[in-house]
Amino acid sequence: MTSTATTPELPPVYCPVEPAVHPRADAIERRAVEWVDRMPLYRDDRERRRVIGTNSAEFYARFAPFGPEHNVQMAAHWVYWGFAFDDARCDSGPLSARPDLFLAMAGPLQRALEAPYENLTEDPLVAALQDIGRSFHECATPVQVRRFCDAHRAWLFAVAWQIVNRVRGHMPDLAEYTAMRLHSAGGAPTLAMLEIATAAEVPAREMDSPAVRALTEMAVLVASWDNDLHSYRKECWEGHTDQNLVTVLAHHEGWTAEEAMVRGVGMRDRVLARFLRLREDVRPKASQELRQYLQCLGHAIRGNIDWALKVPRYNAVEVAGAPLQDPGWADGPSDASTDPLPIPGIAWWWDRVAG
Amino acid sequence: MTSTATTPELPPVYCPVEPAVHPRADAIERRAVEWVDRMPLYRDDRERRRVIGTNSAEFYARFAPFGPEHNVQMAAHWVYWGFAFDDARCDSGPLSARPDLFLAMAGPLQRALEAPYENLTEDPLVAALQDIGRSFHECATPVQVRRFCDAHRAWLFAVAWQIVNRVRGHMPDLAEYTAMRLHSAGGAPTLAMLEIATAAEVPAREMDSPAVRALTEMAVLVASWDNDLHSYRKECWEGHTDQNLVTVLAHHEGWTAEEAMVRGVGMRDRVLARFLRLREDVRPKASQELRQYLQCLGHAIRGNIDWALKVPRYNAVEVAGAPLQDPGWADGPSDASTDPLPIPGIAWWWDRVAG
Repeated sequence: MTSTATTPELPPVYCPVEPAVHPRADAIERRAVEWVDRMPLYRDDRERRRVIGTNSAEFYARFAPFGPEHNVQMAAHWVYWGFAFDDARCDSGPLSARPDLFLAMAGPLQRALEAPYENLTEDPLVAALQDIGRSFHECATPVQVRRFCDAHRAWLFAVAWQIVNRVRGHMPDLAEYTAMRLHSAGGAPTLAMLEIATAAEVPAREMDSPAVRALTEMAVLVASWDNDLHSYRKECWEGHTDQNLVTVLAHHEGWTAEEAMVRGVGMRDRVLARFLRLREDVRPKASQELRQYLQCLGHAIRGNIDWALKVPRYNAVEVAGAPLQDPGWADGPSDASTDPLPIPGIAWWWDRVAG
Repeated sequence: MTSTATTPELPPVYCPVEPAVHPRADAIERRAVEWVDRMPLYRDDRERRRVIGTNSAEFYARFAPFGPEHNVQMAAHWVYWGFAFDDARCDSGPLSARPDLFLAMAGPLQRALEAPYENLTEDPLVAALQDIGRSFHECATPVQVRRFCDAHRAWLFAVAWQIVNRVRGHMPDLAEYTAMRLHSAGGAPTLAMLEIATAAEVPAREMDSPAVRALTEMAVLVASWDNDLHSYRKECWEGHTDQNLVTVLAHHEGWTAEEAMVRGVGMRDRVLARFLRLREDVRPKASQELRQYLQCLGHAIRGNIDWALKVPRYNAVEVAGAPLQDPGWADGPSDASTDPLPIPGIAWWWDRVAG
């Protein structure tokens, strides 16, 4: 077990977005915990504490601070499910080192989501996912459901890729890591639920436009890199640092963990700054639904941070040695460059899109 | 090497759709071969013959018998690419038994398609895919491009799943095989190009509706099962029958190859009959673009058969012992039941959709 003494603390966070939370967050959490128990999403008390300790209802109440309570509730269910799945089948558990078994499980699981009224397996995690799938069919539009399902498959594909790297002992370079991380953290299905939670379908011509695709991907990457920064400390404490922004930079650039974290935060700030500028450019011509979606992308970035600073998953003494120190808020990006990041695969966010 | 004597011949084919082919098929093929040579999609003369012998231009000229010549051309390029990729990286070649290496290759490849203006790798197959990606950005709408990219990822995911089954020596049951086969044959990206080839974007509310999703999936499955029936003979000749409709049924039901083929054809006919009925139900209220798309789904099912009966890939003496015998056309489905097939995951095509 590695001492936390070697783990750099987070610098102040650049995120000029006001915090927000759904006014019915508490009621949503209470009912979500009932749902977690009913499925159930765990096998024993330890797993139950772990799943409930993800604070997933609070998490999504921050992402979608407005919207019909029922819809936010259904999205929160998936977040609990996603964490339970992640712990049981992706990041740890017997499949975390077996890409073959992971794929053999994930393929039928994805189909079960797409056909949620059909009994495909006895697996309780699959049954819980189908429960969510049915609820989406009831409260969301077919377009929203399709978007969520596609994002869900992209996530499973990237998790398999991540497991393969882990098994091969392969530390991806920054371009590969970024391409993988755009999906492996589950950001895409999480953000695909924003439209469901707020009951506002974004027209396809807007959602699939290069600018909105870029904005969605940027929000995913900022939140996923933030997740890397938050979980790095926990992983150091646990003695297994996996592929994440800090280790990728340290490995390929020969930097110390401190340097890698500073440079990683600088890259993260540049993406967020680009996100905010492009969002301003897109907003004036956006439909009401798109404006709402873009607003929630900002809430997601901010909410992910507010959630991470308190959630037991990253902060409990037994999982991370000590709570995260509140790093405070920075006035501006730590790297003020407006040039594209030199990462093949995402440079087009700067080069090839306009509002 | 297995003798063809044990391989059942195909029964007459039920497919009440008129044959069609794009009037500029020959010119499209000539330019496509120039493109195949320019990339190039092969490493030696043997591979070149194999790629060009897929008759991919003819294939897609049958799928999209109308539409701007340039757009059909670009779609044909992807079909050549897909066959080259399939032979080099999926069905044979060193990755065909290594799901880990396949995923490590496929993840960056998918991102390269999504960001086709950025230089992600030196791999010539990736460069060729990016050439296609750029051409789609130029001749197709963002919605069409996004649909193609999502379908492309779903294909890669299912190919990885198929490789895993192969490596584990796992013969999937019919439900699992069907879920996998809906994507592993590349049917979804192939059909996602229909809109691009015909320059007609189907509105999202129609495309993502349960009925049109079901119609697309049914067309994919019929064509993929037909592909199974056509390639089964070739695989028997080559002495390696992989997971396909005939082997799955024979294995799990204890049937002979002859019985499995007859029952498989019966299932295939029931799906096609359901497709034709549902398409009639949907058509009256469909937009012009959707009507065109639905028409092309029928051309795809028919064109896939017409192509298969002549293409060297299945018919050359050196790959299959002898050309496929033209089975002739059946007047009606070999199994006239209009009940849902008892396959979890697709029963909703009958139960839960209406025009």
